[in-house]
Parts: sequence; structure tokens; C-alpha cells
Amino acid sequence: MNNYARRVAIVGVTGYAGREVERLLTAHPQFQVAGKFASKSDEKSGAEALSLDRLRSFSPEGVVLATEHELSMHLVPELLGLGARVVDMSGAFRLKEPRLYQEWYGFEHTAPALLQEAVYGLPEFFAESIKAARLVANPGCYATAAILPLIPLYQAGAIDQTCTVVVDGKSGVSGAGRQPKAETHFCEVNENISAYGVLKHRHTPEMVVQLPGATFDRFVFTPHLIPVTRGILNTITLRTVDRMSAYAILSETYAKSPFVQVLPQGQVPNVQSVTKTNLCSIGVVNKGANTVIVSVLDNLVKGAAGQAIQNLNLMFGFEPAAGLVA
Amino acid sequence: MNNYARRVAIVGVTGYAGREVERLLTAHPQFQVAGKFASKSDEKSGAEALSLDRLRSFSPEGVVLATEHELSMHLVPELLGLGARVVDMSGAFRLKEPRLYQEWYGFEHTAPALLQEAVYGLPEFFAESIKAARLVANPGCYATAAILPLIPLYQAGAIDQTCTVVVDGKSGVSGAGRQPKAETHFCEVNENISAYGVLKHRHTPEMVVQLPGATFDRFVFTPHLIPVTRGILNTITLRTVDRMSAYAILSETYAKSPFVQVLPQGQVPNVQSVTKTNLCSIGVVNKGANTVIVSVLDNLVKGAAGQAIQNLNLMFGFEPAAGLVA
Amino acid sequence: MNNYARRVAIVGVTGYAGREVERLLTAHPQFQVAGKFASKSDEKSGAEALSLDRLRSFSPEGVVLATEHELSMHLVPELLGLGARVVDMSGAFRLKEPRLYQEWYGFEHTAPALLQEAVYGLPEFFAESIKAARLVANPGCYATAAILPLIPLYQAGAIDQTCTVVVDGKSGVSGAGRQPKAETHFCEVNENISAYGVLKHRHTPEMVVQLPGATFDRFVFTPHLIPVTRGILNTITLRTVDRMSAYAILSETYAKSPFVQVLPQGQVPNVQSVTKTNLCSIGVVNKGANTVIVSVLDNLVKGAAGQAIQNLNLMFGFEPAAGLVA
Amino acid sequence: MNNYARRVAIVGVTGYAGREVERLLTAHPQFQVAGKFASKSDEKSGAEALSLDRLRSFSPEGVVLATEHELSMHLVPELLGLGARVVDMSGAFRLKEPRLYQEWYGFEHTAPALLQEAVYGLPEFFAESIKAARLVANPGCYATAAILPLIPLYQAGAIDQTCTVVVDGKSGVSGAGRQPKAETHFCEVNENISAYGVLKHRHTPEMVVQLPGATFDRFVFTPHLIPVTRGILNTITLRTVDRMSAYAILSETYAKSPFVQVLPQGQVPNVQSVTKTNLCSIGVVNKGANTVIVSVLDNLVKGAAGQAIQNLNLMFGFEPAAGLVA
Repeated sequence: MNNYARRVAIVGVTGYAGREVERLLTAHPQFQVAGKFASKSDEKSGAEALSLDRLRSFSPEGVVLATEHELSMHLVPELLGLGARVVDMSGAFRLKEPRLYQEWYGFEHTAPALLQEAVYGLPEFFAESIKAARLVANPGCYATAAILPLIPLYQAGAIDQTCTVVVDGKSGVSGAGRQPKAETHFCEVNENISAYGVLKHRHTPEMVVQLPGATFDRFVFTPHLIPVTRGILNTITLRTVDRMSAYAILSETYAKSPFVQVLPQGQVPNVQSVTKTNLCSIGVVNKGANTVIVSVLDNLVKGAAGQAIQNLNLMFGFEPAAGLVA
Repeated sequence: MNNYARRVAIVGVTGYAGREVERLLTAHPQFQVAGKFASKSDEKSGAEALSLDRLRSFSPEGVVLATEHELSMHLVPELLGLGARVVDMSGAFRLKEPRLYQEWYGFEHTAPALLQEAVYGLPEFFAESIKAARLVANPGCYATAAILPLIPLYQAGAIDQTCTVVVDGKSGVSGAGRQPKAETHFCEVNENISAYGVLKHRHTPEMVVQLPGATFDRFVFTPHLIPVTRGILNTITLRTVDRMSAYAILSETYAKSPFVQVLPQGQVPNVQSVTKTNLCSIGVVNKGANTVIVSVLDNLVKGAAGQAIQNLNLMFGFEPAAGLVA
Repeated sequence: MNNYARRVAIVGVTGYAGREVERLLTAHPQFQVAGKFASKSDEKSGAEALSLDRLRSFSPEGVVLATEHELSMHLVPELLGLGARVVDMSGAFRLKEPRLYQEWYGFEHTAPALLQEAVYGLPEFFAESIKAARLVANPGCYATAAILPLIPLYQAGAIDQTCTVVVDGKSGVSGAGRQPKAETHFCEVNENISAYGVLKHRHTPEMVVQLPGATFDRFVFTPHLIPVTRGILNTITLRTVDRMSAYAILSETYAKSPFVQVLPQGQVPNVQSVTKTNLCSIGVVNKGANTVIVSVLDNLVKGAAGQAIQNLNLMFGFEPAAGLVA
Repeated sequence: MNNYARRVAIVGVTGYAGREVERLLTAHPQFQVAGKFASKSDEKSGAEALSLDRLRSFSPEGVVLATEHELSMHLVPELLGLGARVVDMSGAFRLKEPRLYQEWYGFEHTAPALLQEAVYGLPEFFAESIKAARLVANPGCYATAAILPLIPLYQAGAIDQTCTVVVDGKSGVSGAGRQPKAETHFCEVNENISAYGVLKHRHTPEMVVQLPGATFDRFVFTPHLIPVTRGILNTITLRTVDRMSAYAILSETYAKSPFVQVLPQGQVPNVQSVTKTNLCSIGVVNKGANTVIVSVLDNLVKGAAGQAIQNLNLMFGFEPAAGLVA
């Protein structure tokens, strides 16, 4: 840690994503952890409880929030008021329209103006806005693994929009958080596979909103819980138009991207190949217009903490890949 | 075991499916195991190697084949020649058109006449033909879990055929067989999720052929390997037409079926709920025309050995559910 | 279920062990489930909350308690007062000396007279007392897997008591109960191995008290949590005296036992071989006096619910193996 | 990689341990990988087959062998003949007495003179000899996790030698190698726990020989296969003499050791706490003379590849912890 390292506080440091942020910041050459706090849901964890006065005493230049949606929604205005720049890993600032919060999250958004200001933290597409942002909404894990392969295809007009785009997501259990719940009990997950949030998962609007031309009517996302700790695999099925090649578009788009990898045509990645890296790896297989895209990432790295670091790097003017493993 | 029990031989008894057939037949009140043989691939298993002379000496009335596709293709004519009735758990007799074997299995079928004679062993739909059959082609595991929920919808004309039907399959590792392979090594499967056979898995033609009106162009099946031992979960995404309700059609179709269960609308089943049973459990969720169906079964029971017993029960005139757990 | 089936109530039916009792009783030819109740810790489960009045209304002849130690301690006197015969699966009545409860369980026992009356429910050794008992203390899972192989050796004077007997226990997670806790979160158990309760686990006094001649000074039990759902494997290391053969003693003792199996000398069992059965399988390997015994059982069957059924069979005069799978 | 990096070849690079050596060397500031070869057992892996001529062409200063015992035994004399310094990760040079190879490994050792020359590569105890060695025998995984906590106790005379020292080892599956075998098939390992090599595992003589005063008669090691990919946990049970404290001896011995960590008295480590690090973490609990020591390490790092790097660092004069994570 050098003396000129930028100071970043973490709120919600005891959860899986918060702990990963801490791990990455601690090893980062240009940041230092300035203040670590528990969120409300982990008060018994032994970590210091969050207090704004105490947080202010650390004079953080940046704050990473690894907190629940509603807590983030209430904290962000206060943190911005302290002059800190914020990367929020919850969903509280990912959508622009307040009514989507009522519909998909079930609460009334109390900071609609900040919804407009917040920048969606997908560095591969919004790097310039992120550099200047006070508030970055770090994308969801499933959403990152769906938007990265899909956004270039929607932009290119390559997708047959008369047909549904189907995103079948499979996630490890760390994505469900560290709070013990019936659904995350070992005996309920082990030797089991289950779908959840069918047609109502909150990452659906995040994807539809980010994909130019996508509509709720022709976009279905179904997430599943798989007995692994880390990793997401999205299987995306779509039809292309005009003999356009999803492979060609994606391999060209990401040819120089440090953290998005497109495999040779016909090959698909598995989850182990990206574990503990900040990579999103993508494979494309097609038979005529029918196209299957498989994308994988580590839900705690590129799907959460690693992407937060990528955003912080941009916000504070460091190399995009500083402190990250490809 | 009573004296009047019908005599059934098993070939390929050391594999996971063959072993399950043995377990179910041994506990069955009306069958007895008459001869157990290894298949070629398990010669080192200590089980008796298959020989037709030796098999004949057991005078089996029925034979269950838990053997590889090509071995089944060669054995079936010989077994029928002995006068035995055969349930083949391989894919060797599931398709009617020989050219599909070249395209999807990569071999020339040597018994095309038997392809015509073979009955597809899905008791819920073909019970009368199965009762009279000499040769039953026991359905594939993924195929069973896809065809059961889809066939009533195709029959009812409920599916929007301008849009692709997407079947995303997730299977436990026992479906890959007992032969040690790199892909089934614990360390390659554990903490991993992977897609395989993308756009070329052999259960695809089995599904398309059984579903009236389905076409290869508007039907995509993608299987995945999941770190569990037993179980399949298929997530099926489709659009219905004319405000037809997939839930209504399925719950009516299976209202009295002993082994197909339709959950209350909006609920979806998980794999644990059917482990070691012969059940296929189905859940339906829809939002307008967009419909997601989740179907689960135990790949070694309803997806293989249990369904074979169901077929044998029909072939030998016993109660459909004899010796099976719902 | 026949009309003459004996009526048995279950308290704590929503836990893993209680649910297994329900499964076994439901399939049992001579018992019927008369009343199912939640215990205090599972009040939110949707199961009926326990009330003595309500329980009395079912007129149960037997009650199985799948409840926490202290709840069992308070319930048993009341249930006996109703005239029911009780099998308690908690540790509340397994020890005779009240002071051991203070030392190992951390509470003052409020029913010391019943401690004297309670019969330790190990059918292989105490069948006659169990037949006549009002109150049976169903043994602990680790304890069953340790006492069955050790008691014949201690009785025969075969163990070198100058040397420590070491029991290294490994258990699946269902043994930790169904309540979500940090320790049973999938991500904490998966890809992990851990020892717990080192030199203070409550099954230690249970073992020492049941083994004639064993002393706390020369007996060490260390349990471990393993990422499987079901199963216990105890590895027991000891020295024999006078060239006595542990294998010979055990194979003779259990030659006719329906639920204890001794493998051929030199072979050891694994957990899968007994899953979902009521078997305890034992293997013995020795090199001179050094003897390693490996014993396995399914912690929810022979280690809990199955053994409870075995005890109920004795108490109500049925065949010892009725309703159980060997 | 700098120009002055020392050149190290790897033989057996496709196995789990070999791959980990490659990963660590590639990231190491002072080594470079000069030649990577398959071992005999992985000829189909696509890696370059080993040939001495080809290996010589890379002019390696060091060679790491991740090969089977007998292959190592034959390769080492040839590699030393090329002038390379060798770290052998097999057991081929860990024991001094040729007769122990006949007894425990079942082969006649063909290089007995090199057995005398080889240095046992446990840097915590033999750093000076390692620095000067041509041939280092990298310790076994179980052995490392047993010897590190036990050697200080034997040296201090703290162990009651009238009583058996019991080492109960539990290992992840990567320790069994990457070759597909029945024992490492996912379905055989998952939901299973098993003991193996009871009273005849090859790490037993390695431990007894390294521990001053230990005898085969009073030392029992039993390994177990656990359904995790990485990690070893040894549970060691012993009696101390003269009120000596194992905790005091161990915490003093390792107070300044970068890769051996002794937890506060009464605490025990779990496997997750050391995953992907080169740490061996040790916990001690005692009750009078009865002492239970729990030691954990990552079998592929401190138990194999990490320790090999530690040895290479010493052999080539680098910082002991260079390129390693504590």
C-alpha cells in the first residue's frame, strides 16, 4: 500500500461480495481500504456497525456498497453528501424509471433524481460516463453475463425480434448472499437443481432496459440455483436475421477487451474456466439462424466485486485492469 | 419372488441404469431377474460377459438392454430371434428414419425394418402399442422430461410455431454413464457448470419427431452437466397462441396419471422432490403468451429404469404402477 | 394402513429426522401416524404447533420426539402422564447421571428420576428392556456407529486399555438439523472439511457410559462436518490385547443381526453402501495389535429415525425389521 | 518474466499438481518455465511427450517432476546427468531405506545411492540441506500436514510413546490425480465418504521416518476420500507427557514461520481457510494429556506445487516466500 493510494470504504463487508471487494482492494496497488462496516443484516458479524459519523472520520474518497437494495437507496444520497464517489453493488440505482422499482422490486424509490444521474457500471460500454460519475450502479451478475453478449447483437440489429430471446441462467449459491436461509441450507441445495423467480426476477428489467430494442414481450429470463459456490452460466437462445453471424459480431466487438473473451466459433466455456478471474467468457454455436450463446463469469468477481474495482479504476483514473486477474 | 414371476434378463447390469433396473426388478412382485450380463464396455466389472447361448439358458421372457446404441442395434434382432420381448434403453430404436441415425448418431442403422416395428415407450401416450410390442424403445431421459409437458400442447395446437421452443436441460452426472472419463472426473464436474452437445445432442431429433408439428428450425435443445448425481430439470420456454393456457391443458391431461404430476399454477418443482421416484413433476408459469414450463424427473428412474419397468408392466399385463414409487 | 395399526404421534415433524420418522411410519404396515406437530424451533414451518390438548385428542399409543434436548426433557413427563410410550430422539434421557448433563449439555436436568427409568434404545443389546419400556432414549448417530463395533470388544476384554481408543467421526450436514445457520450455509460447507466440538461433543459421554470399562481419560471422540447430506463414517483406532481379533469377535456377535453387517476381514465400507437403509456396516483391518475399524450408517435412518422404528417395533410387539430396509 | 529468470522444466504438466506448478512458476518473478512435458500416463493430453533430447534443448537449470513414483525413479538419474537440479514430487526419493520401497510401494528401488543423497524437502526443517541439494524429494501432502505439527513434539520428547499416535487424514479428490478412474468418478465420490489404504498407505513410512522416535507399532495413519476438490485436514490424537503443552511447543516453533500458522489455543482451522495458499494451519485442543491437533493445507499448494516452489526458492537463492501466497 503506498501513501498516495486512494481511500475507499466498504459497507457490507461481511457478505460474500463485500468480502471479495475487501480482498481485491487490499491487494490493489492504488487503493487502500479506509473503513469497513457491516450492513444492517450482518450486525451480529463482529464487524463495525455502520455510522455516517464514523464513516466520515475515515475521509473516504470512494465508497463501495455491498448492501441490500433499500439500504443502498437510503445511503447513497447521504454518502454523496459527504463528497464521496459511490459504487453501489445493489440494484437500487440500475434502472432509470421509478415505476420499474414498484413493479419488479416492490418498493417506492425515494431518490428518483439520482436514478437519472446514476451511470450503469458496465465498463465495456460506458467507460467515459463512468470516469465522470459520482454514482455508479454496478450491474447484476446475471445481467452482466447476459448484456455483454447481447448488447452488440441488438446494436447491430442482428436479432430476429419476432422471436423470443431466451436467457437461461444458472448460478452458484454465493449469489444468494451469506445470510442463512432455508434456500441456502446445504441439504436443500446439494443434490438439487431448482428454478426460481420465474418470469419475475429483478435482473430481467435490467437486461431489457440496457438492450436497445429489446421488449419485455420478447425477452424471457429464467434463473436457476445450482450446487456450486461460485459461477454463473447463461445459455442464451435467439434467432439472427439476414444471415448475420453472432460469432463475427462478438469476436470483433471484444477483440481487444481485457475482460471479455470470445472463444473460437463452436466452442463453449464452462464455469471453472473463469473462477476467481474478472473474465466474462463467451461461446457461440449456430445452425442457420438458430444461435446458442453460452456466457460464463464468476458471480463474485466480474459479476460483482471485480466489476466494482474495474469501475473504481475508471473513476479514479487508473489502468482499467489494475488489481484484477484476467 | 413368487414362482409365477415373469423372467427378465438384464444386459449391461453394471452401469448406473442397468443397476437400477436390477434394483427395481428384484423388488418387483411379479418379475424375477433371469440372467445378468455385463455389456462390452464393462467387461472388467466382474459381471458375467454377455453370450447369447448363456442368455438363452436362462429362458428369459423379457430382456432389458442397458447397453450402448450400437451394441443394442446389433443385439436386438438376435434377442427377438430367441423369442424374447425387449425393452431397449439405448437410442438405437427410438427414431423411425434411418437417415436420422446417420445425421445425429453418426452410424448407418443395420436394422431399419425394426425401426418401423419398434414402439416408443412412453406409457402415458402409447400404452396400447406397448402392450402388444415385441420391441420397446425406452425414451431418453431429457426427452421424457421434454415430451411429457410438450406433447399435449403441440396436440392442442397451443404453441406459437413462429417462435422457437427452447428446452434448456440440466442433468446430473449419472446420465453420463459409469465409465470413467475425463468429463465425469469429480474435480472436473465439482464447482463447475457446462453446456455440451450444443445444437447436436441426440435427444433433439427424439423430441422433434415425437412432437406433432415441431420442426428442427423452431426447436432448440441445449443440455448441461450439473454437479449432482441424479436428476434432470428441463426449463422450457415457449409462446402460446389464442390465449390458450398451457397450465389448463397439462393439468387436465395428467389429472389421473400416476406418474405425471402438474403442480398448482405458478409453482415449479425441483429435482429433490422426485429423487428415487418414477414421477415426472411439471410446473407452469406464464405472463401473457410467454410461458415457462419446468419439468423434473430422476434420470435413472422415470428417465430410464423406472420407465422400463412401466413398459414391462404393460407388456406383461401387470398394473401400470407395479413395483414403482410415485 | 390397517384398522388395527398402532397410533404414533410425531413431535418435531418438520426437521430432517422427524420427516424421516414420518416417511417410515407412513410406509409401515403396523403403525399409523396419529398427530404431527412442529417443535418450538420450527414454528414458522406451517406444521401444527404442539399443544398437549391437541395431541391428547389423537389418542396416540406412542410418541416419537424429534425435538431439542431441553424441550424433550420437559415434554417427556407430560407425555408419559398421558399414558403414551415415548421414543425420544434427543439426548435428554441417554445418560443416567444428572451431573453429566451439567458438564456436557450445560443444563440442570429436571427429571432425574426418569433418567433412571429410561432405556437406552440400542436394540442389538437392550431388546428385552426396550420391549417393556415406557421411555426409550434413542441413541445418537455418532454414538450408534461407535458403540455397535466397540461394545463387543469392551465386553470381551479385547481392548488394550493403557492406550487411547480414538473415534474419528465424519458426518453429513443433515445431522446438524434443518434450522438455517451460518455453519450449514451451502457456501460454508461446500469445498470445506472441518472438525467441531473437539474434546467436548455430547456423544462422548454417551459412548463412554455405554462401553463397559471405557474411561474418559482413554477415549477421544472428534466429529467432523463433511459436504454430504446423509451419512456417518466413524474411523476407530485401538490396540487389542492377547492377540485377540476384533474381526472374529464382531463377525461372531453380528452373524445373525438383521441391521449390523460385518464385512470380510480387511474390507471397509463406505457411506454410499448404506444410504437410506437401516444398516450399520462395519469393516476391520489390523496389523498386529493395531486395529482400525470403519463403521458407517445413514445418520437419519440407523442413526435416528430407523432406529426409532426398530425400537417401536420392539415396544409394540412387532417383527424387529418391520417397515425397515436392510 | 525477466531475462535473468532461472529456467525450470516441468514433467507431468497436465496433471493437477503439474498444472499448479506451471501456474505458480508462470507468475513467479524469478523463474521461467523452460519446457513442459506430459508424463507417460497423460500421453493423450496433447502436451508434448517427454524426450530427454528435447528436454535438454531447453537447457533447464531446474526440473520439477510431477510424475508417478516409478517414472521419477528412472528419470532422476538421467536428469541429474544433464546437470539439472531436481524437485521430485513423487514418493520415489522420500525414504532412505530401499527395503521400505519393497514393503510399501511394491517395487525394487533401482537408484539406492540417490536415496541417500536426496534431501527431504520440508523447508521449515531442512532449509540448509535443500539449498545445497541436487535432488529434493518433495514431501507427500498428508505427510506434510502430519509432520509439521508432530516433528516439534517428537523432538521435544512431549509425546507419550506408550500410546499410539493416530493421524486421521481427510483429502479432496485432486490428490488422487487427474487420470479418470472408477474411484474418482463424480457419482462414486459425491454423497460418499470412504477410508482407503487402511494400515498400508505409503505416507505412513514417510511420517514415521521423519519423526524422531516414532515407531510403526505406535503410529497409525488412516486416509479418507472426501467430496471436495482441494484440501487436506489431518486430525491427530496423542497423549503428552509431563504436562507438556503441545500448543506451547508448536506456537513457539512456528512463531516466525511464513507458511505455518498456529491458531490461538482451543481453535481449529478448516480447509477453506487455506485454499489456494501455501499455508499449513494448525489448531491444538487438549484436556489433560489428551491432545487433538487439527492441521489443514491445500494438497495442491503446500501439499505439492507450492512446497516445490518453496524448495526451488531455497535451491536457487531466492526469498523463501517468493511467488507464494500465505
